[in-house]
Amino acid sequence: MRKPGARERGLRSRRREFLRAGLAGSVAGVAAAFAGAPAAARAAEPPQSLPEEARLRQKARIDLMEVALGRRPADLVILNGTLLDTATLELLPQTGIAVSGRRIAALGDVRRCVGPATTIIDASGLYLVPGFVDAHYHCESSRLSPTQHARVTLPMGLTAYFEGTHEITNAAGGLPGVQYFVEEGRALPQKIYPCVSSATPPSPVETTSGYIGHDEVQHAIRQWPDVVRGLGEVMDLPRLLEGDARLHGVIQAALDAGRRVEGHGSPALEILDGWIAAGISSTHSPRLPEALAMLRRGLHLQLKIDRTGDIVRQFLELPLKDWRLVGLAIDDRPADELLEIGSMDHEVRRAIELGVPAAIAYQMATLNNAQHWRMEDDHGILAPGRYADILLISDLEKVRIEKVVADGRLVAEQGRLVREIRVPAAPEYVRNSVRLPRPLRAPDFEIAAPPNRSEVTATVLKPRYFSRDLGPLTHKLPVRNGLVQRDPARGITKFAVIERYRRTGNIGLAFWELGFDRGAIAWTVNHDHHNLAVVGADDADMAVAANRVAELQGGFVIAAGGRVLAELALPIAGLMTDEDPNSVAGKIRTLNRIANDMHPVPVLAGRTTDLLTFMNLTCDPWKYALTDLGLFNLETREKMPAVY
Amino acid sequence: MRKPGARERGLRSRRREFLRAGLAGSVAGVAAAFAGAPAAARAAEPPQSLPEEARLRQKARIDLMEVALGRRPADLVILNGTLLDTATLELLPQTGIAVSGRRIAALGDVRRCVGPATTIIDASGLYLVPGFVDAHYHCESSRLSPTQHARVTLPMGLTAYFEGTHEITNAAGGLPGVQYFVEEGRALPQKIYPCVSSATPPSPVETTSGYIGHDEVQHAIRQWPDVVRGLGEVMDLPRLLEGDARLHGVIQAALDAGRRVEGHGSPALEILDGWIAAGISSTHSPRLPEALAMLRRGLHLQLKIDRTGDIVRQFLELPLKDWRLVGLAIDDRPADELLEIGSMDHEVRRAIELGVPAAIAYQMATLNNAQHWRMEDDHGILAPGRYADILLISDLEKVRIEKVVADGRLVAEQGRLVREIRVPAAPEYVRNSVRLPRPLRAPDFEIAAPPNRSEVTATVLKPRYFSRDLGPLTHKLPVRNGLVQRDPARGITKFAVIERYRRTGNIGLAFWELGFDRGAIAWTVNHDHHNLAVVGADDADMAVAANRVAELQGGFVIAAGGRVLAELALPIAGLMTDEDPNSVAGKIRTLNRIANDMHPVPVLAGRTTDLLTFMNLTCDPWKYALTDLGLFNLETREKMPAVY
Repeated sequence: MRKPGARERGLRSRRREFLRAGLAGSVAGVAAAFAGAPAAARAAEPPQSLPEEARLRQKARIDLMEVALGRRPADLVILNGTLLDTATLELLPQTGIAVSGRRIAALGDVRRCVGPATTIIDASGLYLVPGFVDAHYHCESSRLSPTQHARVTLPMGLTAYFEGTHEITNAAGGLPGVQYFVEEGRALPQKIYPCVSSATPPSPVETTSGYIGHDEVQHAIRQWPDVVRGLGEVMDLPRLLEGDARLHGVIQAALDAGRRVEGHGSPALEILDGWIAAGISSTHSPRLPEALAMLRRGLHLQLKIDRTGDIVRQFLELPLKDWRLVGLAIDDRPADELLEIGSMDHEVRRAIELGVPAAIAYQMATLNNAQHWRMEDDHGILAPGRYADILLISDLEKVRIEKVVADGRLVAEQGRLVREIRVPAAPEYVRNSVRLPRPLRAPDFEIAAPPNRSEVTATVLKPRYFSRDLGPLTHKLPVRNGLVQRDPARGITKFAVIERYRRTGNIGLAFWELGFDRGAIAWTVNHDHHNLAVVGADDADMAVAANRVAELQGGFVIAAGGRVLAELALPIAGLMTDEDPNSVAGKIRTLNRIANDMHPVPVLAGRTTDLLTFMNLTCDPWKYALTDLGLFNLETREKMPAVY
Repeated sequence: MRKPGARERGLRSRRREFLRAGLAGSVAGVAAAFAGAPAAARAAEPPQSLPEEARLRQKARIDLMEVALGRRPADLVILNGTLLDTATLELLPQTGIAVSGRRIAALGDVRRCVGPATTIIDASGLYLVPGFVDAHYHCESSRLSPTQHARVTLPMGLTAYFEGTHEITNAAGGLPGVQYFVEEGRALPQKIYPCVSSATPPSPVETTSGYIGHDEVQHAIRQWPDVVRGLGEVMDLPRLLEGDARLHGVIQAALDAGRRVEGHGSPALEILDGWIAAGISSTHSPRLPEALAMLRRGLHLQLKIDRTGDIVRQFLELPLKDWRLVGLAIDDRPADELLEIGSMDHEVRRAIELGVPAAIAYQMATLNNAQHWRMEDDHGILAPGRYADILLISDLEKVRIEKVVADGRLVAEQGRLVREIRVPAAPEYVRNSVRLPRPLRAPDFEIAAPPNRSEVTATVLKPRYFSRDLGPLTHKLPVRNGLVQRDPARGITKFAVIERYRRTGNIGLAFWELGFDRGAIAWTVNHDHHNLAVVGADDADMAVAANRVAELQGGFVIAAGGRVLAELALPIAGLMTDEDPNSVAGKIRTLNRIANDMHPVPVLAGRTTDLLTFMNLTCDPWKYALTDLGLFNLETREKMPAVY
């Protein structure tokens, strides 16, 4: 009687019309679109328009289910482990894990999942722990490209991290910096979740290469919804509290997309609530006076463990009854330090040493971070559906990692990669970022005195890069041939910041009480503008060092007596290299050794962040900074004269 | 020298081009788009294209920040309360809360936020607790419209719930059912988060009015991203495990949008991992044998407290060290029961009676549910930025709620609304859903015997609607004038399901061992197809009751001796009414009383879900069902003869 073909076609076209029209205002039509459709026609409902990628994801998910049900063999099965359950804090002995593709299919007795081609790992005597998730990280600070960084940190158990990107987006033209992490990350077993930078540019008092506003944030989230999970740390506290349009625009774009907004620093109690009300959901740099108040307000704390022993001790003494909002993070760590002390394994080890119960310390590095990022269906717990990122550990308290499974495959054993990870050539769009209008010359670093003066007053930057109560000093400096001179006796040397993206020829010049008495160091890692900085006891050496950095397309160079003593090339956005990590670490050590010979304090690296690269920050709590536009009081945002 | 206007226009147009082009393949162009832009031009970066609604949200957020900073007065300030901090499980004495608009601005000492027009509530002697969030709820089961339901449950502290919507979407043409909850919810201080139904239609063995597949889920999430937070409970376990295209299509659409997929039931351990691997993230109906295994696998348990005492006791005995994945939910509760025992306040009270520490019981009804739904920035904790949904409680253990602040305003005191909530007319698109081709007549309910038989074998449904081990009975039934007769002596009566959406005229007929010996009951609340069902000892009374229900456009009607004895009209999709809740509860009680006079077991309501309305489910663990298409074995999906 009926003609199914015609009816089905009709139904299909009505459904399409309805979806096209949207709902608002056309609801009566919608209801009508289905009324009267014969019951039997529904079975023949047209296939849905899943895009090809979604269809592949769906297939992978259904395959995973089939493996869990024992209908298809697993690719990998781990047997006889003792599972640390991060949801219940239990240790579950004799537990197996079945893996299909990139994800975990089943848990417990998984013998049903073993087929003839299944790889089996015997985990007798080992603990099974979820791969570590760093909640707040800047891969750029390792000086390594994402792939080289993965080769170092995967054996240390770091299987996922949330990358800030404000370094590279300031240096590589904005969103292309995010794209670089997305694309390089997609090829890795380590998952990289690049946040969109909220600090590009970091402030109005410096020049950088990129701009990220509301529309760019919206665009990035739409373009890469699976990996762009949030807005990177909001650092410019004064402008946040002022209601700055760009800053509140990027926040709104993130919140409207259901993404989280990362914080920075530790606002005092009087402004803490305003900061949270503005949309901030975390910080990686809480201080003791505010930490508990932050937790009580639902903020996620991403503790850099070596700096927050006092906070951990406070929580243990309370005792804190619920640790779900306490996570761990590294933030910044150069390659040499990674190789020396480790990655998130170090944070967990130290948390346990501080007295945190081991199971909770692991939760802090896994589930707590995953849940903050709303990615607990992918990370943070060894359970069906999650990525098969699994650490096999022989000593839970000492975090002795024997094997690392990432993305479903064994990638490392005893601290070494067992699976080759190819290092791709960095794309053109993150290269050649050091663009100067012409080579530098010694006279570029001259500071002229006002006419007819034999002495001037100079605004001299202090050796440490910030202090709550320490202003810049003023010193009298001698003038020779109309030019203001250094004062080596008092450690006062010269400092320059050279704009390197737009060929503006901008050079900011000032004096710095750094205690430097010979040669020069030039470098392009200058948080967060990453222009070319150079400090030196001699103008000619400053030019030599700076020009060599420009030739290398970024990096660190030490020069003295007119020649280069040591260097590290960082040709990827002037921040990173795809050179072998051990070689990079060796060069960093050499640079540090030579710099330390020239200077009494470790200027390049140390257990804490290094002095030179963080000298130029324009965010709270930094108070004064030299940028390519000059010397600034950051609180008033007024330009200050270098000499007067 | 420069012409700022022209330069800015150029920059603006380059940025627009870049965003239009997208990134892939045009990156070199992107980097170039910014190169060479003069430093000063960046300050004049063009305003971003925030849509008007986003601009309003941004303004509200900045206003909130200003209030927190003490720069603008709060609308409402609560002073001197003892705050239950759901993040740390602490009780914080002498704590204030400042509210601006719909949200909390500040916490602690909030005197700085008080202005001349600020409303002040003194909470001396009272606890401050976040408004309750039900993680899994069906407003339809109250029989009340969302607004009338809010009027009942807001004074009980229910300030937000996640609504399943498969009832209304099956009865009101699919997505318009979601739209109804979105639109009615937007006008309420109670937040409604309608999930998109995964069960529309529930199965292929029944007729309903709507269809929701992959594209519809995608559409709903894009249309209402702020409130459509997930996919409603996946109930058809066999089809899930089979890889059914529609079911896995809706799941994929939800997962691809970063939304969670709700589960149902308690799959046995052998299939539990497959079920989770398929994408399920929660269940509201766990059973003891699986509950702990579910928790260990990261599943969110939404405990219906009166049915899960055994599970709670198990967790307490362990003892469970981390309760973050344990939440509370009501699922279904009719108006009379709401008025009698309460809403989520009842669940919290009972959890405490079972031995759960009070602070954790409140967490289970607030933060744990909010975090599962990834809405911890809006709900679940009294902190800046969150909705100002605040309960003022005099007795924490007994959950004695003195005042309810919702959406920033005092809405209830001592169990009564103090703020009028207008009841809107239900929109046309959820009305007139009972569409029959013609009035029913007694002969419509006749069941013909095969020719020349004095007796037949009948497949008789058991009184209870499901059982793991209980099949349908077969009975011999007498034949008179070619028609199969009831057997009142053995309690065997007649049951019909009449299709009510598409005027197909479909009627499913079978016998039911319900012990019904006079009159008839007809009703349109039939989970989940919600067709018109009628059970009766007499064919003529069945027609009277069913026709009256059709006249009422849905509801419950009891008829006997040819006349209507009691009725409740549910004209909104045949499921709900905007009648006064007390009147509805009274009518439900009358219906129950009369029905119970006619029948030995409570057929309509009780502490547990009622017998009649849940008789027709076609999901696990139901085994047999009568639908408009006939009698089905749900495991094999085979049609069974009513008589043979």
